[in-house]
Amino acid sequence: MSGMDYRSSGVDIDEGSRAVDLMKKEVRRTFNGNVLSELGHFGGLYRASFPGLKSPVLVASTDGVGTKLKVASMTGDYSTVGMDLVNHCVNDILVQGASPLFFMDYLACGKLDAGVAASIVTGLASACSENGLALLGGETAEMPGFYNEGDYDIAGTIVGVVDEPMIIDGSAVAPGQTLIGLPSSGLHTNGYSLARAVLFEKAGLKASDTPPELGGSTVAEVLLKVHRSYLGEMKPLLDEKLITGMAHITGGGIPGNLSRILPRGCGAFITPEWNVPPVFSLIEELGGIAPKEMRRAFNMGAGFLMATEQPGRVLSLLRSMGSDPFPAGVVNDTGSISYSDEGGSQ
Amino acid sequence: MSGMDYRSSGVDIDEGSRAVDLMKKEVRRTFNGNVLSELGHFGGLYRASFPGLKSPVLVASTDGVGTKLKVASMTGDYSTVGMDLVNHCVNDILVQGASPLFFMDYLACGKLDAGVAASIVTGLASACSENGLALLGGETAEMPGFYNEGDYDIAGTIVGVVDEPMIIDGSAVAPGQTLIGLPSSGLHTNGYSLARAVLFEKAGLKASDTPPELGGSTVAEVLLKVHRSYLGEMKPLLDEKLITGMAHITGGGIPGNLSRILPRGCGAFITPEWNVPPVFSLIEELGGIAPKEMRRAFNMGAGFLMATEQPGRVLSLLRSMGSDPFPAGVVNDTGSISYSDEGGSQ
Repeated sequence: MSGMDYRSSGVDIDEGSRAVDLMKKEVRRTFNGNVLSELGHFGGLYRASFPGLKSPVLVASTDGVGTKLKVASMTGDYSTVGMDLVNHCVNDILVQGASPLFFMDYLACGKLDAGVAASIVTGLASACSENGLALLGGETAEMPGFYNEGDYDIAGTIVGVVDEPMIIDGSAVAPGQTLIGLPSSGLHTNGYSLARAVLFEKAGLKASDTPPELGGSTVAEVLLKVHRSYLGEMKPLLDEKLITGMAHITGGGIPGNLSRILPRGCGAFITPEWNVPPVFSLIEELGGIAPKEMRRAFNMGAGFLMATEQPGRVLSLLRSMGSDPFPAGVVNDTGSISYSDEGGSQ
Repeated sequence: MSGMDYRSSGVDIDEGSRAVDLMKKEVRRTFNGNVLSELGHFGGLYRASFPGLKSPVLVASTDGVGTKLKVASMTGDYSTVGMDLVNHCVNDILVQGASPLFFMDYLACGKLDAGVAASIVTGLASACSENGLALLGGETAEMPGFYNEGDYDIAGTIVGVVDEPMIIDGSAVAPGQTLIGLPSSGLHTNGYSLARAVLFEKAGLKASDTPPELGGSTVAEVLLKVHRSYLGEMKPLLDEKLITGMAHITGGGIPGNLSRILPRGCGAFITPEWNVPPVFSLIEELGGIAPKEMRRAFNMGAGFLMATEQPGRVLSLLRSMGSDPFPAGVVNDTGSISYSDEGGSQ
């Protein structure tokens, strides 16, 4: 080669511009009256006006989608991973009582395909719209040699707000309170490295296979089910101050996440009698994975847990909204989390 | 293999915990009185109290470090890329007049080494401390099969605040105003795919080589020079309302970034008489890259540009702070950006 330019080094600025053009409309429809910036500005502007809040506190969380992206890459379907990312982040700040304000995304790949990038951002934008937050800005990075061609990594940061007296940090959780769960749609965004190793490598399944355990769905369809947002059903409960603590069940499962909000000395006795989606049993069986390890790697069908002193009111309110809550156990004073089916102490 | 667990699929939760332990102290020393959360909470809490601001507006920006990370990976020195990321983001919101509040980071790799992760986060934390912002939270993701072993991608989101009447969006930029530049330390975080292709692939240099043009420094030392933050020197100028517009010169160079703040009809005549660091000439020469392409891919020694009606006052104020500003051209009414040495119109 003789003279070089940016494109010959693997970075295509024009494809980047094309991607931005494709995204613009989707992003703009998430904007609301608090957004003061236009696309293309260096930073996104969001009015810090919180009428009705006495002492507003910003709540921020950053997350990724993990190797669920490998399943998207296998199938070429990138329409859902953006929703996964936004919903995951919405739940992460919801557990502290926060309402989302805006979202910032990071998208990185080895070779940018404007259509794929637009598909991811369309998913981000649609989940932002559903949850009432603005997709305020983002970064799309083409990094040749860093990512395999066809692989995209995405990460995002959510910023929300909560009034200081309404912050929920678990300090009000106490022995005797009831734990109530809300179903997950599947793996959400955690445990995909293990799930892929079991299903695709060990068991030799293909993304398009329909093992009878999955009731007619393909492996890819089940693995790509969108991470649920719990904002809509939890907001009325928070407004009524019915909840003492919440845990978003992500990597680490119930043991790893519920423990993050239990006050010192508190433990929990989990009664796992809810419906466990068949994908978890399939992974457990094909992988020969110990039940304890399953519960550490996956949500096992419980995507969200809350503690309350008024379980009757909580269950009936949730059911009246069309939600499908289940009793999941009780808070106790053992200092550790045990399950009713493993002979743990109550 | 028989029974599987998470570790056998490539994800090591214990190494992740070790990384978090190593990071904790560094992160905590960035906390200030506005941070209400502890590490390990689901989200970071930051008090939205902005005394003295009439109409506070949040300014958010997300960015990465690009393939500068490949240079870190080649040398094993990850101590500076965190600083690059924070400083880059600080500048990105500074151009709108914003002061930084907090930072959120995303760190992803194929196989987590707690020491490397801690080194990256130490860099993030030290740049956060220097710029007065809290490292409020982050995510560390181990994604086997997604990244080459030894490769780490990092991205971050900054949130700052500006009083609405003090927002700088370039609308006050007008023909006749002077452009003043501030030097970059080198490539900052842009153009690394092209730089690496030229220096390492085409010219066959090694990271430890010391080509005479670099005056005794190794290629790696020059390429890893830390992205400068311009917050300290620009803040006093903003407080005095001396600046009508600012551009952070990143990917796209002066043509791609100055154009983002010029009002419709405005253009600029650039007089590139500042010192161009030798690394740029070396890349241009070894790569046989056209000057115009160089200016589109790199900052060419001008990391930050500002427009002002009071160039004398701006230059003397900056010099009194020990900064090294240079006249970089004028705003005109041509509607496009041209350079004095390319026969462009003024």
